[in-house]
Amino acid sequence: MTITIYGDSYSAHCDKVRFIADHLKIPYRWIRISIEKKETQSPDFLKINPAGELPVMVLADGRKLAQSNAILLFLAEGSALIPDDALDRGLMHQWLFWEQLTHNPVVGYLRFQRFLLQKPEDQIDPTLAPRADRALATMDSHLQGRRYFVGERLSVADIALVAYTRLADEGGMSLSRWPALRAWVQRVESDLGLATALSAA
Amino acid sequence: MTITIYGDSYSAHCDKVRFIADHLKIPYRWIRISIEKKETQSPDFLKINPAGELPVMVLADGRKLAQSNAILLFLAEGSALIPDDALDRGLMHQWLFWEQLTHNPVVGYLRFQRFLLQKPEDQIDPTLAPRADRALATMDSHLQGRRYFVGERLSVADIALVAYTRLADEGGMSLSRWPALRAWVQRVESDLGLATALSAA
Repeated sequence: MTITIYGDSYSAHCDKVRFIADHLKIPYRWIRISIEKKETQSPDFLKINPAGELPVMVLADGRKLAQSNAILLFLAEGSALIPDDALDRGLMHQWLFWEQLTHNPVVGYLRFQRFLLQKPEDQIDPTLAPRADRALATMDSHLQGRRYFVGERLSVADIALVAYTRLADEGGMSLSRWPALRAWVQRVESDLGLATALSAA
Repeated sequence: MTITIYGDSYSAHCDKVRFIADHLKIPYRWIRISIEKKETQSPDFLKINPAGELPVMVLADGRKLAQSNAILLFLAEGSALIPDDALDRGLMHQWLFWEQLTHNPVVGYLRFQRFLLQKPEDQIDPTLAPRADRALATMDSHLQGRRYFVGERLSVADIALVAYTRLADEGGMSLSRWPALRAWVQRVESDLGLATALSAA
C-alpha cells in the first residue's frame, strides 16, 4: 500500500506526518501544496479536501484522511509509538487534543505571526505570548523527572508536540527558560533522526 | 475498577462521557462540579485538574485522564463503538478532532452565549452563526446516504458529535434546515436511550 501525503513544510502539522512515516519506514509519496501560494484553496485541491486544509493522506484505493493527529494515529497503529497500557493510551490522546486546542493556537500561531508573516509586534494579539509561555511551562512541568510525555518511551504524543515546540524559537519563545522541555525536544529530535531546530542559546 | 467522573451537565462535553459510560454499562461515580458557581477554579478541584477544566476521569488507583474525547476513547476501548477497519478508526479520530476544533467552538459556544449566558444578540460575535451553519451543513452533507459518521454503525464519533448538535436549537440553530442531520441526531439519541433534546419544529 503506497500512500500519498499532501503537505507543506510551511506547516509543522505536515512536518510531523513526515516525521512519523520516516521513523516507521512507511513508504509514501509527498505532494507539496503551497499554503503561501494559496494552493490549498485551488479547485483541484478542494476536490481532495473540501475543508482546504493540510495535511491530507490518501490511500491507494482513494480513501482519504484529514486532521494531522488522526493521520499520526493511523500511521502508528501496531507500532511501539502506541503505549501498551490502556490509561497511557488515554493520556496519549489527552495530549493530542491538548496540542490542538491549547498549544498550537498559541505556540504555532505566534510563530506564524512573527516568523512567517513577519508582523510588527504592535499588530500581534498581546495575549498570545503569555498564553504560549503557559503552554510551554505546562510541558516543562510535566517533563520534570520524565523522559517522554507518556509511559517513559517515545509515543505519538511526543511527535505531535515536538513539531511546533522545536520551532518555538522562531516565534520568539526561547526554550532556554525551560531546561526539561529543551532537553526533551533534543531527545525526540535525536530519536527521529532530525537535526535540531533549536538555536544554540 | 470503579471510576470517578467529575462533570457538570452545564457542559455537553461532560454529558457525552456519561452517555458512553451508560451505553456500555460501565459503572462510575459522578461528582458534580458546578461550572456556574466557578467550582472548577476552587483549590480542591485544581488539585484534581490543574487546568481547571471538566470533565476529568479518575481511576481507582488515582490515575487521571482529562479531555472529553480522550475519555470517550478510553471507555470505548474493546467495544463495538470502535470501528473494525483501520481507516475507519482514522476517520473516527478525524471527526473527534474536527468536533473539538471546528464544531464546538461555534455550535457549542453559540449555545453558551445565547442560552446559558442569555447575552443580547448585539453582544455576540456576528461571525459565530454563519460558522455554526457551515459546521452543521458539513455534517448534514456527510450524512447524505449515511446512517452514522463512520463505517455504518454507531461509533465514538457519533457520540462526541451528538452532544452539542442535539442542543443546537438552544443556540438558535434549528436543525429543521438539515433533515439528514436531524434524523441522525434522533437515531443516535435512540441508540443511546436518550429522550430527544430536539424541539418539535
